[in-house]
Order: sequence, then structure tokens, then C-alpha cells
Amino acid sequence: MSPRIVPPTFRAIDVIRKKRDGVELSRVEIEGLVNAYTEGSIPDYQVSAWLMAVVLKGMTRPETAALTDAMLHSGDVLDLSSLPCRKVDKHSTGGVGDKTSLVLAPLAAAAGVAVPMISGRGLGHTGGTLDKLEAIPGFNVNLPVAEFRRVLEICGCAMIGQTTEIAPADRKLYALRDVTGTVESPYLICASIMSKKLAEGIDALVLDVKTGSGAFMKSEKDAAFLAELMVETGERMGKQVVALITDMDQPLGNMIGNALEVVEVVEILRGRGPEDLRELCLELAGWMLSLGGVSKTVAEGKQESAQLISSGKALERFRQMVELQGGDARVIDDVKRLPQAQHTVQVPSTKTGYLTSMQCEQIGTACVILGGGRERKEDAVDPAVGIALNKKVGDRVAAGEAIAMIYYNGEARAERARQLIEASCVVADAPPAKRPLIHRVIGE
Amino acid sequence: MSPRIVPPTFRAIDVIRKKRDGVELSRVEIEGLVNAYTEGSIPDYQVSAWLMAVVLKGMTRPETAALTDAMLHSGDVLDLSSLPCRKVDKHSTGGVGDKTSLVLAPLAAAAGVAVPMISGRGLGHTGGTLDKLEAIPGFNVNLPVAEFRRVLEICGCAMIGQTTEIAPADRKLYALRDVTGTVESPYLICASIMSKKLAEGIDALVLDVKTGSGAFMKSEKDAAFLAELMVETGERMGKQVVALITDMDQPLGNMIGNALEVVEVVEILRGRGPEDLRELCLELAGWMLSLGGVSKTVAEGKQESAQLISSGKALERFRQMVELQGGDARVIDDVKRLPQAQHTVQVPSTKTGYLTSMQCEQIGTACVILGGGRERKEDAVDPAVGIALNKKVGDRVAAGEAIAMIYYNGEARAERARQLIEASCVVADAPPAKRPLIHRVIGE
Repeated sequence: MSPRIVPPTFRAIDVIRKKRDGVELSRVEIEGLVNAYTEGSIPDYQVSAWLMAVVLKGMTRPETAALTDAMLHSGDVLDLSSLPCRKVDKHSTGGVGDKTSLVLAPLAAAAGVAVPMISGRGLGHTGGTLDKLEAIPGFNVNLPVAEFRRVLEICGCAMIGQTTEIAPADRKLYALRDVTGTVESPYLICASIMSKKLAEGIDALVLDVKTGSGAFMKSEKDAAFLAELMVETGERMGKQVVALITDMDQPLGNMIGNALEVVEVVEILRGRGPEDLRELCLELAGWMLSLGGVSKTVAEGKQESAQLISSGKALERFRQMVELQGGDARVIDDVKRLPQAQHTVQVPSTKTGYLTSMQCEQIGTACVILGGGRERKEDAVDPAVGIALNKKVGDRVAAGEAIAMIYYNGEARAERARQLIEASCVVADAPPAKRPLIHRVIGE
Repeated sequence: MSPRIVPPTFRAIDVIRKKRDGVELSRVEIEGLVNAYTEGSIPDYQVSAWLMAVVLKGMTRPETAALTDAMLHSGDVLDLSSLPCRKVDKHSTGGVGDKTSLVLAPLAAAAGVAVPMISGRGLGHTGGTLDKLEAIPGFNVNLPVAEFRRVLEICGCAMIGQTTEIAPADRKLYALRDVTGTVESPYLICASIMSKKLAEGIDALVLDVKTGSGAFMKSEKDAAFLAELMVETGERMGKQVVALITDMDQPLGNMIGNALEVVEVVEILRGRGPEDLRELCLELAGWMLSLGGVSKTVAEGKQESAQLISSGKALERFRQMVELQGGDARVIDDVKRLPQAQHTVQVPSTKTGYLTSMQCEQIGTACVILGGGRERKEDAVDPAVGIALNKKVGDRVAAGEAIAMIYYNGEARAERARQLIEASCVVADAPPAKRPLIHRVIGE
């Protein structure tokens, strides 16, 4: 860990006032605030006032980079320079049914790119990579750093949760933001994401910034603003960063829920599975391979990725990672070994026509209600429950035909989830306009 | 004390988010926040985030009134309905050399208006009424409420400091604002002042809102905004409130420093003393008498006040109050009994011409440096030290002639104060444009 430097003349009140008055803060002032807060020498109430001033007054690009850098250096930064290949990660801002990380880590590793992935848990209506991995019996997401490095060296990818050594400033700041109404700031979101990702010791990063009814950034404008901020911040810190603005106006793929999503991951790695999920995985993999220096172009990277799937090499890499992290790899050939919900119930359409929209955040919330996510931070997650979509936006549907199947373990929860899904789906006579899966690419 | 009501569904985070997003808060939400904070059921870090959102997003008039009302009812509200006359107070936003309160309380009382005055101490570069009163040996500003009421009943005026029973929410909020950069909001300043003043159980209030280089509100625009806010808030709460925007571009009167200002108060009550101080006292007294119902018009109130001074009745009332509050009233006839500084030194003009301006905040700071105010909250005040001005803005001055006399007890402090005063005074060839003493009257 780098030594934290708090200048002797540092006064939190001056930094708060400056930000309140819209004056740009210096790198030294931002570092002073972050370091003093991390070491506990300034109180929560001063930092929360400063955070609110940041939410309402914003930050310049140099301020955002300085904040990211200070948070990054509040803890350990992995040194993976001993690995002979380039280190590339992918990060998504969070969505519903987004299981791409589980596909991409072994896929990019099979292509010769190292993927040291440190992920999070479900947040609000969105799922979390760690919760999905833990649906695999025995899978350990809490590896010590030395073991993380060993898995990475052997199979080229490893997937764990945030350790206490990584960006402690972010953990402390995030907990405070969560209870002071200061989460919703692109500058603070950028610094939080980028400080954690850059602590992985990566060379390059592919960002999947979601937009639409299931995303935190509902509008494409807000998503693009955050994407540009993260790309510029990463570049200021000497990393190659590209951001794809992708669609989250309906769930990605057909499965929502931890074990169900692992099933779909295996499907994709077998060359099957839903088209939208496969397309996004190949697109993101194409960028990872290109930034990872193993293919000349993104198109070549996509092609190479498709071959690694059809040859079974990506699936084998997934199997290897699961085994190395203590998971029961037999689930890959026998998905019935994954946790199974006790009951299922269909959600039928009330009319005939086209499925024109799904309120995607509500679908995610339905999964949380079933127990597949957390209503409170301390809640346990039920890996077995979830939702399988039989129809996607644009599909024809007949009255009485199932739009979705609910996998559940409790009647009352299932009924609340069913009502929410039913209310989220709109069936109309005319087909909807098609939304693109990839809206824009920012950076590079 | 009224029971504090925090609705069971109250969530501080919702109130913070609403204010952050510019949504008007309801009376119930504001009451919930103030009451929960006063009783200690929500933490400082949530309230400081909310305060910063208020600073940057402002408040509507109904919100400001609701905040004032909630703070007022966080503690005791005096019930002075047993007194047969109207209760009127005066409050100043703070200035340099402003000793009008010590003149006005006995003067209005002599006219038959009750003045239950709860005052504060010096803040920053400004003096405080309590510090001035305590320059009189024995004067007790910490009377229990019952004793305060007794003094008020006997002589019609009483002057004390804030008790722990009055507006505890303000005390807690002010301490938090002081360390979180959230002092500078007209809405929060209004609620702080008005909640304390209305807790005195008054019928009417005369506000003296200072503007100029020695005021907290440097521009007349900011002063008028705060004045209008306080007048409207008071009126929404059923009180008669009038605000005078008065000049604080140079010190008021000639004396700055606690004992020195008592000397000048006695001078004014004897019908002597500097013209600007006398004029402002009569103007404010005119309003107090008019709102107090003892004179038909402000002009009549001024005339009546002048008579009470020339007849000696106002001075006798001052003497009575000093005696009732334990002070040595002999100081009135023998001001040498007041604390005396050991040394004096002149501040001569470096050139001949007109004194065209005095940086008034600096003059106030010079008095603080001498020990007449507090650099830190816990500092003791030296009542003897201060500054006597021989010249005021517009006066002719010759090179070498004294602009001011410093009364001091420490050489180093005196030298720093002298330099500051010298740098604050501008002497030029042409006389300055005359600034009015009363800029505007708002309300009524």
C-alpha cells in the first residue's frame, strides 16, 4: 500500500467550501480529503456535506481523475507484470439477466488474454456476478490475493469479490453515499468503478454501460456522459479504455436468477443460447481480444471468439476456472446439480399481439422479490429462484400463452413477482420499433 | 416544551434526496427531520448532506417557515402573555461597533414596551451584546428564565444569553453548520435567527440587517434578500416584523471594544455621543415604539424616544436593569470603574486629505486581535481593549493626525492591530460620496 499523505495544513472545511462555491479542487486537496477520511481523521459529517456538494456542483475531468487516483491508491494495487500477456477486464454498470462476465472471462482467457476480474454482488434490482458464481456449489469467490494470482497464472482468468485491501476509500465512501443520497453522481460513480477496476493491475478495460428501463442510467444521454467520463478518466491514468453503450430496456438473454443464469452461460459456451446474449458476448469479447493484443481488429476478435466457443475451448476454460476455485464442475454437464427451485408457475399473456415492451427494472425487482436478490444488504440470496422468459420484445404472443416461467420457493413471493411481471409486459397489435443492442461505442 | 413528533414512516434519506432533486419538502418532512435530529435519532452525516443540499438548492418560503417553526418548537417558547404591554425585540445581523441593543432595550422599556432580549456573543469580526454587557462588573447574562421574567416585569427589559431550553435544534444545527461549510445560506440564517427570536414570546420584531464591508451580507442585494425572507417568515408565523437595511461600511459610532462601547452607550443615553449611532438608535426605537403600540407613527416614536433620552428616563431604566441583573451601576456615573486597558497608541494618518473609506471587517478583526473578540470559540474576551475612532468616513484629516486610538494590553497584538487599521483606512484628495445610514425599510 502506498503511504497516505495528508498535508499538515489540510482543512476539510476549506475543501467543502470550495466545492460548494464551484471552485476546482487541486489534486493535493482531493488526495488530502480521501486519505484523511480513509485513515479516520475527518468525520463522516464533513465528508457527506462534501459529497452532496459534488453531486450538485459536479467535478471537472482533472478532479474526477484525481479522486479516482486517490481512491485507487488508498489500498493495494495488484502488480501482475509477471504475467507474460496483457491483462484486460470488462465491467458492466449493472443490468437484469446480464451474465456476460461468466462467459467473457474464460473466453478471453482461452484467446490468451489474462482476465483478473474483481466483481460485486447484486445491487437494487440488478444481479451480481458473485451471486451467480456462488450458485455453483463450492465456488469460492473469497480467494486470498496469492490464490487469485495462482488461478490466474494457471487458467488465465479468475473471478473474486472485492478484498479489504482493494480501494478501502471506496468501501467507506460508498457506505456513506448509500445513506446520504449521494450515490447518483456520474463523477462519484466513475471514481468508484474505475478505482476498483484499476486496482486489478490491468492494461485495458472494456466498459459495458447499460441504458434503458433496466439500467441505472435510463437515458442514453446519461449513459454516454458516464461512459465518456470513465473512458477519459482511464486514459488520464494511462489505461486503454473503451465503453459500449448497450441496451437494457429488456432483460439480457432469457434467464434471470443466479442458477438459471449459470445454465444460460453454459448454453452460450456450448454455442447455443439466446441470440442477444450471444451477440453481446461476442462483441465485448471482440473488444477484449483486440485491446488484449491477440487480434488485430475487433471483428477479428469476434471471429476468434466464435471459434473458441465452437471448438469447446472456452467451455473447457470455464470448467478449469470452476475447479480451481473449488466449484463442482459437474454442473456443466448436468445442470440439474445446480440448486433447483421447488415450484414453477407460468405468466400467461392476457391478450394476443406483439410483446412491445417490458419494464425491465420491474422484472429485476420481481427476481429480487422471489429471493434471487437482496432487499436489504444483510439478506441471503436464494440461488435457485428466478424467471425464464419465453418471449422477448418483438415476439408474437397469443392470449393464454406463457410470456415467462417463474421458478420459486414461496407462494406469496411468487404471487407478488407474477403480478409485477404481468404489469411489466405490454402486448399490443403492432410490433414495436427495434432497439439496437449496441447503441454506441465510446473511446478508441 | 411541545412534544416532538417524528412520524413512524419518516426516512431521512427520502428527505435528503428530495431536497437534492429540488422537490419542495412538506411541513411534516421538515418537522420530522428537525425533531429526529434534535432527539438524536438521525446521525450528523445525514443532516450535513441535507444542509448542503439546502445551501445549494435553496428553500421555498413555506419550507423556510416550516423549518423556523420546527426549530422554534424544538424547545421552550416563553409565554409572556401575563405582561400587560406588547413585547417587541430588535435583532441585528452583526456589525462592528454596533451597541444599539444596550441603548434600545431600556429606551423602549421606558416608553412602555416590554423588551425580552436574548442575545449572542461576538462571531468572527463582529461584536456581541453579551460580551458588551459583561464588561460591566457583576452583570449576569445567565439568568434563569424565572429571574429573566422577574427583571422584565420590574423594569420592562432584560438581556440574557440563549438558554439550553430555547431552540435546542438551532444550537445543534448551528454547531454542525459551522464545521460543514453550510453557514452561508439565507434560508438557514433566517431559520436560525427567527426561531430564537420568536421563542422569546414577542409580538413584534425590528430587524437591523447590516450591509457593507463590515457586514456578513456585503451587498445590499443579499442583505435585502435575507431581510425579505425574515420579514415574510415572521409574518407567516403571525408576528409583525420589519427590517431596516442599515449601513455597515464603516464602524457604527466611534467606539469598538466591549467596555469602550458601554461608555458610548452611556453617552448616547445622556443625549450625547456620535451622530450616526444616535440617529440609528432613534430610528430603530421609533419602529419599536410604533410596533409596540405606544406611538402612532415611527416619526412620533422617534420623537418620544428623543424625549426619553433628554429627560434622563432612558438612562434611569438602563441603571435599573444593570442593578437588577447584578451589575455595578456606579460605572454609569464613573466610567473609569469599567475595565481599563493599560496602554494606548495612536494610529496617525500618513497623508492629508479626506478619509474616504474604512475596510470595516478589518477594523473588527483588529479589535478581535487586540483580544476584544474570539479567534476561537473557547477564547476569553478582554473587555478593556478596543479602538476609538477620531475620524469617520468623509472627515478631513491631516498627515500625522490620529485617525484612531488603540486601547491595548499587549504590544504584539497592538502592533498587528495598528497595521490592520492603517491598511484599512484610505485617505484621498476628494471627499467620498455619502452613503445613507438607512438604505431601505422592508415590511410593514
